[in-house]
Amino acid sequence: MTQSVTGKAGPTHLLHFPQIDREIPSGAAETIFQSARRNGVRIVGACGGRGTCGTCTVLITEGRIHRDGEDAETIDENEHAKRRRKWVRSCQVRAVSNCVVEVAARSLAPVVRADVHMGEAAEMLALDAAVAAAIVHVAEATLEDTAADLDRVIAALPQPAARIDAVAVRALTGVLRDNGWSVRVLRHGDELIGFTRPGARLLGMAVDLGTTNAAAFLVDLETGMRLASLGIENPQVAWGGDLISRINYAIRDAEAAAELRESAVTAINALASDLCRSVDATPHDIVDIAVCGNTAMQHLLLGLPVRQLGRAPFVAAVRDAVEIKARDLGLAIAPGAYLTVAPNVGGFVGGDHVTALLATEDRWRDGRTTLVMDIGTNTEISLIHNGAILSASCPSGPALEGGHISCGMRAAEGAIERVGIENGRVVTRTIGNKPPIGLCGSGVLDALATLRTGKLIDDTGRFADGHPDIAEVNGKRALVLGDDVYFGQHDIRAVQLAKAAIRTGVELLLAQAGIEADDIAQFIIAGAFGAYIDVRSAIAIGLLPALPLDRFEQVGNAAGVGIRMMLASRAARERAREIARQCRYVELSTKADFQKSFLFNIGFRTRPHSRRGL
Amino acid sequence: MTQSVTGKAGPTHLLHFPQIDREIPSGAAETIFQSARRNGVRIVGACGGRGTCGTCTVLITEGRIHRDGEDAETIDENEHAKRRRKWVRSCQVRAVSNCVVEVAARSLAPVVRADVHMGEAAEMLALDAAVAAAIVHVAEATLEDTAADLDRVIAALPQPAARIDAVAVRALTGVLRDNGWSVRVLRHGDELIGFTRPGARLLGMAVDLGTTNAAAFLVDLETGMRLASLGIENPQVAWGGDLISRINYAIRDAEAAAELRESAVTAINALASDLCRSVDATPHDIVDIAVCGNTAMQHLLLGLPVRQLGRAPFVAAVRDAVEIKARDLGLAIAPGAYLTVAPNVGGFVGGDHVTALLATEDRWRDGRTTLVMDIGTNTEISLIHNGAILSASCPSGPALEGGHISCGMRAAEGAIERVGIENGRVVTRTIGNKPPIGLCGSGVLDALATLRTGKLIDDTGRFADGHPDIAEVNGKRALVLGDDVYFGQHDIRAVQLAKAAIRTGVELLLAQAGIEADDIAQFIIAGAFGAYIDVRSAIAIGLLPALPLDRFEQVGNAAGVGIRMMLASRAARERAREIARQCRYVELSTKADFQKSFLFNIGFRTRPHSRRGL
Repeated sequence: MTQSVTGKAGPTHLLHFPQIDREIPSGAAETIFQSARRNGVRIVGACGGRGTCGTCTVLITEGRIHRDGEDAETIDENEHAKRRRKWVRSCQVRAVSNCVVEVAARSLAPVVRADVHMGEAAEMLALDAAVAAAIVHVAEATLEDTAADLDRVIAALPQPAARIDAVAVRALTGVLRDNGWSVRVLRHGDELIGFTRPGARLLGMAVDLGTTNAAAFLVDLETGMRLASLGIENPQVAWGGDLISRINYAIRDAEAAAELRESAVTAINALASDLCRSVDATPHDIVDIAVCGNTAMQHLLLGLPVRQLGRAPFVAAVRDAVEIKARDLGLAIAPGAYLTVAPNVGGFVGGDHVTALLATEDRWRDGRTTLVMDIGTNTEISLIHNGAILSASCPSGPALEGGHISCGMRAAEGAIERVGIENGRVVTRTIGNKPPIGLCGSGVLDALATLRTGKLIDDTGRFADGHPDIAEVNGKRALVLGDDVYFGQHDIRAVQLAKAAIRTGVELLLAQAGIEADDIAQFIIAGAFGAYIDVRSAIAIGLLPALPLDRFEQVGNAAGVGIRMMLASRAARERAREIARQCRYVELSTKADFQKSFLFNIGFRTRPHSRRGL
Repeated sequence: MTQSVTGKAGPTHLLHFPQIDREIPSGAAETIFQSARRNGVRIVGACGGRGTCGTCTVLITEGRIHRDGEDAETIDENEHAKRRRKWVRSCQVRAVSNCVVEVAARSLAPVVRADVHMGEAAEMLALDAAVAAAIVHVAEATLEDTAADLDRVIAALPQPAARIDAVAVRALTGVLRDNGWSVRVLRHGDELIGFTRPGARLLGMAVDLGTTNAAAFLVDLETGMRLASLGIENPQVAWGGDLISRINYAIRDAEAAAELRESAVTAINALASDLCRSVDATPHDIVDIAVCGNTAMQHLLLGLPVRQLGRAPFVAAVRDAVEIKARDLGLAIAPGAYLTVAPNVGGFVGGDHVTALLATEDRWRDGRTTLVMDIGTNTEISLIHNGAILSASCPSGPALEGGHISCGMRAAEGAIERVGIENGRVVTRTIGNKPPIGLCGSGVLDALATLRTGKLIDDTGRFADGHPDIAEVNGKRALVLGDDVYFGQHDIRAVQLAKAAIRTGVELLLAQAGIEADDIAQFIIAGAFGAYIDVRSAIAIGLLPALPLDRFEQVGNAAGVGIRMMLASRAARERAREIARQCRYVELSTKADFQKSFLFNIGFRTRPHSRRGL
């Protein structure tokens, strides 16, 4: 995935997307799909740009494109004209001039609008917002009364303010004169942060900035209602799928770090723009943003250094929650708005895990021994036992989400989500019951579990002989799941490494607490991926310990819930800070038993149940 | 003076000034002198670019130039090579390629360094700085102690902070590791605004941002000592010499307002850079800036709208002092530093008048009826009487400072500073006793006074006949003062308008207070121009009322003194705000008697002394 995206490799053209009113640069070294992803234009692209899924289809209504391997110079205008009447896969073409791009309706990642009339979609958050608004009416300035605009407004405020955002004040003069000398004054704590027309909306945005995907939620801060949500790929993926690649890029020099920071900012701006458009608002109506991510993502977004985070002793620059003016990061929302970043725990255990703990607190507050696990490219684990919280992070990689897997893809139509054995043959189920075009995360897990339970692989993960569904693909053995869809030896290895990392994390935390897996009274699996896996498969491959199934709960994107709670409520922000302080960070990689446990967990042998600790 | 400086009129080249390590753009429509002025490069240029004074001399050591009227294409490389060995007047040449420019030593406006060993130059300010520094030492991070960098520092602080500048925190990680885990923490009020190496300097800069000139002062905030000072032309002059021209430009659109704002910011950045260079510091050592100017200058710098300020009822957007992060304005000083703008009174009576009142408070605090006047392109007047302060502003224009005067120039060598009559002939004295090349402000005033007292003009200001020093210049009568140096009818008119505006302001304020000129116990004349005028001349032409000479005091740049007091002391900031609140703004232009008084004061008839009010 890591590749040059600096656009220095040739001329850059502009792509205009009229449907979402965005214009982005596209370098000669990039496909239109890659440019879109890197700039937060939300083309689905389920297969990740391999050209197999057809979910990144676009129509070029103006401009000229060429396909990989073609000589752009040899295509005549007739051919270009012909192409302009055909839908193409955006991952297979590059712009050779400025282009106007129409995205197929099904390829434009949907903004999910919560409709207040449809009970199930509407979410009402407990409201105690950091930003409060008061409408103020003042007397018109005359030659007899030449008091300054701001003095008039301050005198009319119900309570005084300690500070005033001088950048936000720029709007006041126009607002007063355009609205009959009325203005809505926004207050954040003891600071006046905005002066808007009385009828303007009061919106907030919560962002779960994952290593691979970014999810954003638009909330009405006057009602607590969730208005819309949207997920896109994190464009930083262009600089590496895993955190270490990105950290290594960022520490090259200040410019490289700025590239990564701006990439995250571009994504958040794009999310704000698309979400607001869907509810007839503008990003300037957003007066508060809350963001969570792992420690590295949060550091990169804030422009904090990450060098010390990527090597022992793995120290964060900042652990506590951070408030920063959104404009200081280049976010184009209300000029005086703050962005709040969730508190970290330590190492890579960041704000997204703290918000997951915040969202699930009602389940573990009673003191039962609880394990909360958020499976992702980085997997965070907290063990809550005897009033203490031990937290750790495992570099599980993107394999469990379908990344770095030969035929991996996002959870979209045609993705294999279930794999099993019937009558000795491997069978699959795809999303939408379409012909299979790849495997999404839950399918990957099922595939390995099926290989394991069906004894199609040995204890080390090597393919066994003689099964009719195992064949040679590209000269290597693979489980064949459809036309051009397979699960190979390399894919098995990737999942083995992921499950070994996670299982090792669980074991080391249990050892630290001096308890065994069976002592875990409830096992909460958070995260979008975790919501869809078959827990039995996860147990079968050793990813999860073999506890009774009723101890597991799959709660979905708890980090997203938690960051929305922080957005809507000052009390929730304070609670998140308390939880983060309560967590004790455990650095796994330097534990004496780490290597031993990890190597053991790569294979599939069962560990003797009664053994204490490791 | 108003002209296009947008650089859209042709190719733009880069001018590199190695002496001050600056690189600036130069548009095809600009002379090198104009480009330098517009970008805050401090070439003297006493005659304002008329080509008469030779104080803007430069050597082009690389690159190619042409002279006005030449066809750039026809100059061959030989000619360019020849030019590279000759000093040229920068106001007479344009760049036709990127150039390296060496400024003649006498043409580079000097940074005045205060030498602590020379008692008279060193100024020690009463110190109560807004920014305080504390050096903190923390334990090194280890695998056993992985607390975040910021948490370590906060725990070691002598007192807690309510807020932390998240942008400034970016430096912390590097500083700790480069300085043996020590850091100097800067605090501004209840906010941590900086994390620097323990040995870094703690500098502040005070800026008096006048309509025509900007003066800056570098102060050591640990000792209160003034380290250096520097004056340059305000580059906004390129958009108009007077405030109304600039306001009219700024209200065209947001881009135009941004041009003016950025021009002021460029000037302040250039001042910071040159001042710091002179004391072996860097602009990042500047942790606090205080700025004063008239209301319009302060609004333009802060990006506040000025439309409502330029028309009745002449209302400021903001009257009180403003604190804004310097980075929000694009200032390249310490990342967390604030810029403080002095409080306004109202109309165009701005922070520079309040600071002049602050600096002279020791003179008027005793309650004597006092008039404080700061003569400039805009002249501000305050009448302190019976515990009240009445304040007004007069649009006197740049004539009294030598601007818009045929042979006007800055106070520099060769400028006529005194004019008188000896044995019936007009005689002059120049600065440095050099041959006259123009008139500076005090010379302009003397020239008119001499014409008046010598009866070379009549009561309306028209030249009389028959004097040997009056001759035709360009077909019009003029007082001849040297080779190519004269004072013409148009110049007389400009000074008449200026003195009428100022005198009218004084009369209307007296009328408002119900007193007469003779009731003024002390008359304080502030401002750089006011420091050099001959009060007798000012009385002779009717600019000042005919009070006994011992009631006048010429105090020099009181605004500069006052803004340095605000920079160095929180108590002075508070006092300035109190003074501003105490002032009652009087709008002169809408007074019933304004027109009548103004028209009367254009001429030279003496008003009957006993008349009350008008």
